[in-house]
Amino acid sequence: MAEEKEKLTIVVFSGDLDRALAAFMLATTGASMGMDVSMYFTFWGLNIIKKNEGGIKSKGLMRKMLNFMNRGGSKRLKLSMFNMFGLGTWMMKKLMKGVNMPSLDEFITMAESMGVKLIACTTSCGLMGLPEEAFRSEVKSLAGAAFFLGEARKSKVTLFI
Amino acid sequence: MAEEKEKLTIVVFSGDLDRALAAFMLATTGASMGMDVSMYFTFWGLNIIKKNEGGIKSKGLMRKMLNFMNRGGSKRLKLSMFNMFGLGTWMMKKLMKGVNMPSLDEFITMAESMGVKLIACTTSCGLMGLPEEAFRSEVKSLAGAAFFLGEARKSKVTLFI
Amino acid sequence: MAEEKEKLTIVVFSGDLDRALAAFMLATTGASMGMDVSMYFTFWGLNIIKKNEGGIKSKGLMRKMLNFMNRGGSKRLKLSMFNMFGLGTWMMKKLMKGVNMPSLDEFITMAESMGVKLIACTTSCGLMGLPEEAFRSEVKSLAGAAFFLGEARKSKVTLFI
Repeated sequence: MAEEKEKLTIVVFSGDLDRALAAFMLATTGASMGMDVSMYFTFWGLNIIKKNEGGIKSKGLMRKMLNFMNRGGSKRLKLSMFNMFGLGTWMMKKLMKGVNMPSLDEFITMAESMGVKLIACTTSCGLMGLPEEAFRSEVKSLAGAAFFLGEARKSKVTLFI
Repeated sequence: MAEEKEKLTIVVFSGDLDRALAAFMLATTGASMGMDVSMYFTFWGLNIIKKNEGGIKSKGLMRKMLNFMNRGGSKRLKLSMFNMFGLGTWMMKKLMKGVNMPSLDEFITMAESMGVKLIACTTSCGLMGLPEEAFRSEVKSLAGAAFFLGEARKSKVTLFI
Repeated sequence: MAEEKEKLTIVVFSGDLDRALAAFMLATTGASMGMDVSMYFTFWGLNIIKKNEGGIKSKGLMRKMLNFMNRGGSKRLKLSMFNMFGLGTWMMKKLMKGVNMPSLDEFITMAESMGVKLIACTTSCGLMGLPEEAFRSEVKSLAGAAFFLGEARKSKVTLFI
């Protein structure tokens, strides 16, 4: 324990902009404090790490529909409250800029450059028909729930967001 | 510590189908890895473990109304997003079947047979007027917040879902 | 470790009445069990600890609008489900009274008197333009994410609500 870094593991289940920001704020802060940070994206959380450009190719009519409606990408996420047809989300982004807070997109790049590991949940990807190419380059691997629990049991702090 | 099993404790606060699935996926994975798993259902999470059949008998007009509107049962839960009057939830169940994922109902039975302990929160039951008979047979006991915290402080991993 | 109290740290991200109640139920139970409890309020969670009386003075048109729409205060919070234009929330408060459960307002006062530390997230306050005077007297300090993670890594149990 003495020479190993303390671990912080975050499950990101939600695809809301506000919760995504909280997750990345904690992840980058943890990394800056010298912690070994993993983020494990599952279900709606996968929307955060989808590429912003291009469409998503998935097989089957239902998956095509799902990935059309549930397009995702860091720039398309909405607030969980006060979205108001986009107005609230737009205002929040303006406020963030005003206090020099990084955008979600910048947070993702920053996190990766600080050594935070971004992992997509294999089961959710299979369920939703998401190929590895659907995710941005900062995402290094896909892994299942057993991998996550293996990390979590070695972690000082584990959060489900 | 050496001979004891590592503990995983999950508070299930939400009654959404997607979050319920995540909780049971983690619980059964933990059990399969040899962890000692407890799930503590509270507030809307109690909907997950209500019996699917029959009505719920509770006293007082307000509780009768609450338990009519908030009927619950694993087969009645909805997605937290894209429910679309049931269409999204129906599609998700189809997709789950397609990749041979257990239904929520099967997950609950599986969890119990793997030794996962399902516990209902006493305070929420009192508040919502839910008698023990409202819950399915896999639920073994009712317990309060002090019991949960007692488990959590001995746990390697504790999640609030 | 032997002589020190075990720590319970709760991030309160949500501003829903139901989740706020769960957080304070766990915090006060933890304190009554002799744990050293910190609650760290961020984003919508800040609504819980805003003063109930008076307006909130913040600078700039967007922040004024945000704090008008998102007024907060323990007495104004709504259930995350079945709010039904206030009817569901009103019913839940009635039910709570019927089983002698403290109101959220009473829970906050109780928590403070039991030694629970209530902390507001500096970054969210800056973002939303909330001055320290916006919060009730039970809130003792503002602190950032690094402070929270420092507490969490020393905690037996950490929850994100």
